[in-house]
Amino acid sequence: MGLVCAGILAGRLQGHGSVRMWGHDPAEVRSIAASRASSRLGGFRLSDAVSLGIDPARQLTDAEVIVSAVPVQFVRETWQSLRPFIAPGASVISVAKGIEVGTNLTPLQVISQVLGESADAARPMGVLSGPTIASELARCLPATMVAASDQTAMAEQIQSLFSTRWLRVYTSSDVRGVEIAGAAKNVIAIAAGILDGLQAGCNAKSALLARGLAEITRLGAAMGASPATFAGIAGAGDLATTCFSPEGRNRSCGEALGKGEKLDAYLARTRYVVEGVATTKGILQLAHRCRVEMPISKAVHAVLFESLDPVDALTNLMSREVKGE
Amino acid sequence: MGLVCAGILAGRLQGHGSVRMWGHDPAEVRSIAASRASSRLGGFRLSDAVSLGIDPARQLTDAEVIVSAVPVQFVRETWQSLRPFIAPGASVISVAKGIEVGTNLTPLQVISQVLGESADAARPMGVLSGPTIASELARCLPATMVAASDQTAMAEQIQSLFSTRWLRVYTSSDVRGVEIAGAAKNVIAIAAGILDGLQAGCNAKSALLARGLAEITRLGAAMGASPATFAGIAGAGDLATTCFSPEGRNRSCGEALGKGEKLDAYLARTRYVVEGVATTKGILQLAHRCRVEMPISKAVHAVLFESLDPVDALTNLMSREVKGE
Repeated sequence: MGLVCAGILAGRLQGHGSVRMWGHDPAEVRSIAASRASSRLGGFRLSDAVSLGIDPARQLTDAEVIVSAVPVQFVRETWQSLRPFIAPGASVISVAKGIEVGTNLTPLQVISQVLGESADAARPMGVLSGPTIASELARCLPATMVAASDQTAMAEQIQSLFSTRWLRVYTSSDVRGVEIAGAAKNVIAIAAGILDGLQAGCNAKSALLARGLAEITRLGAAMGASPATFAGIAGAGDLATTCFSPEGRNRSCGEALGKGEKLDAYLARTRYVVEGVATTKGILQLAHRCRVEMPISKAVHAVLFESLDPVDALTNLMSREVKGE
Repeated sequence: MGLVCAGILAGRLQGHGSVRMWGHDPAEVRSIAASRASSRLGGFRLSDAVSLGIDPARQLTDAEVIVSAVPVQFVRETWQSLRPFIAPGASVISVAKGIEVGTNLTPLQVISQVLGESADAARPMGVLSGPTIASELARCLPATMVAASDQTAMAEQIQSLFSTRWLRVYTSSDVRGVEIAGAAKNVIAIAAGILDGLQAGCNAKSALLARGLAEITRLGAAMGASPATFAGIAGAGDLATTCFSPEGRNRSCGEALGKGEKLDAYLARTRYVVEGVATTKGILQLAHRCRVEMPISKAVHAVLFESLDPVDALTNLMSREVKGE
């Protein structure tokens, strides 16, 4: 996702400003710098205008806008190491989706905490989210995103930076809602994958999408977010692509579990970070704290961490007491 | 869908009452009566307990509950011909999804009008809707539906009649919302198919789902329905299966258009009624009457009936003025 964002920004800036990427893995950074491509993004070619490096002083000093595309569980340590190189007025845009284990904070909350600022501090911060399977963005297929910030000017700046002929960016003031939706949908996507693994069909997965949307909306509302966010691009839209795209990482993990593979075995063989696995813990803790019922997320937790058989999980969900919707 | 409903009811009644089907096409009825199968429902076998016939006196007289699974544009003439055989107290359940051209009425409104009763009449009436690709129901794959009626007892009776181990039925009092959602999602599904035909990708289709859900929710709200219905099983859920299942009739029609086929040519070769085509006209007239903006439905109308090229339709949607979501 970082590569895709860098590519979009380079195209938008057209030389009026530079785009620099920092990465922690010397081998990967060197490989991308040389090939301008990634084995994970078929067909993608990174603009020559983007510089890559592992030296934070060189890549980050004086940056005016910083896009954070770090897996959620590594956001804190990454930003702690980068903090000395961040200019005081630099704005921050987070594109990660998940909940930090232990603190139950969203990525932007973690960054804000690391930078030592309260939520209403002067530094412009925001998130960019939506139904964006990176491999499709890499091919410039049409897509939409939501740019959310407490500050209208920041939301509009993100919108302006990322809008292209094929990428339509909406603005929102509901940062909390966009981040919770982005995190919680990864848990529902694991459940969707489990249904795929069980070959339960499209009706079942669509019901899961609707009931999953209902429970993550309840959580969001209890946390002060707007229900409208969950009905929109960053909610229902992102949930749909995550549940239905064959390329979704969380869905693929769920599918392996549905077919009977053990979680540890799957995580050992995949090349990707499956954000939803750790995030399931955080979502359930938030649900507990907010006294919100989340039966699907709870079932995913039981399959992931309590050895519940996926077939039993599905049977339990289907046989809950039937009531008004 | 009529066959699937008959099969479920026969299983539920287990001999306590009989299930009779009426059909208008003698050849089709004879074929199903003999084979207990349908070429459109692979793997389905109709219970021997279900009788089939084309004689309305024999099939309908004394029926206590009547399930109407007639394509929307044929509901009026069918019910006009069957009306003399309907017992005064018989309850009616409609499972069709669409809007009647000319009147802009929903199937249950048409039936109510034909039976000469106002909406608040004593006869129990309701609808059954949800994400239910019939071929999956035929294989008893897990699914959910919504039983909606103005009368709580009727909603609960529908729920009780159709609930099985693999079919979970919720109740609702929002008949209008469930019918509008079921009709309007067929229009969005044509748009989803067009995106598939253009190979626009999953991000684009998921954005369409979210923005489509937003516009059909606006229409429903303007017509007095509850927005919650649109976020639920009969709204977001049905929209998801209709947009993503390869078997969806409206999606398949849109896909052919996206690949460049003409509407007339497609309709001439398909074996199925594509409810969304006629319903697009009705939805746009309702939108006009309620002064609701429905850009996606409008684009579908332009592709279907105004010779707009699908690529131009997509480009227009992507280049509308960008604003807050």
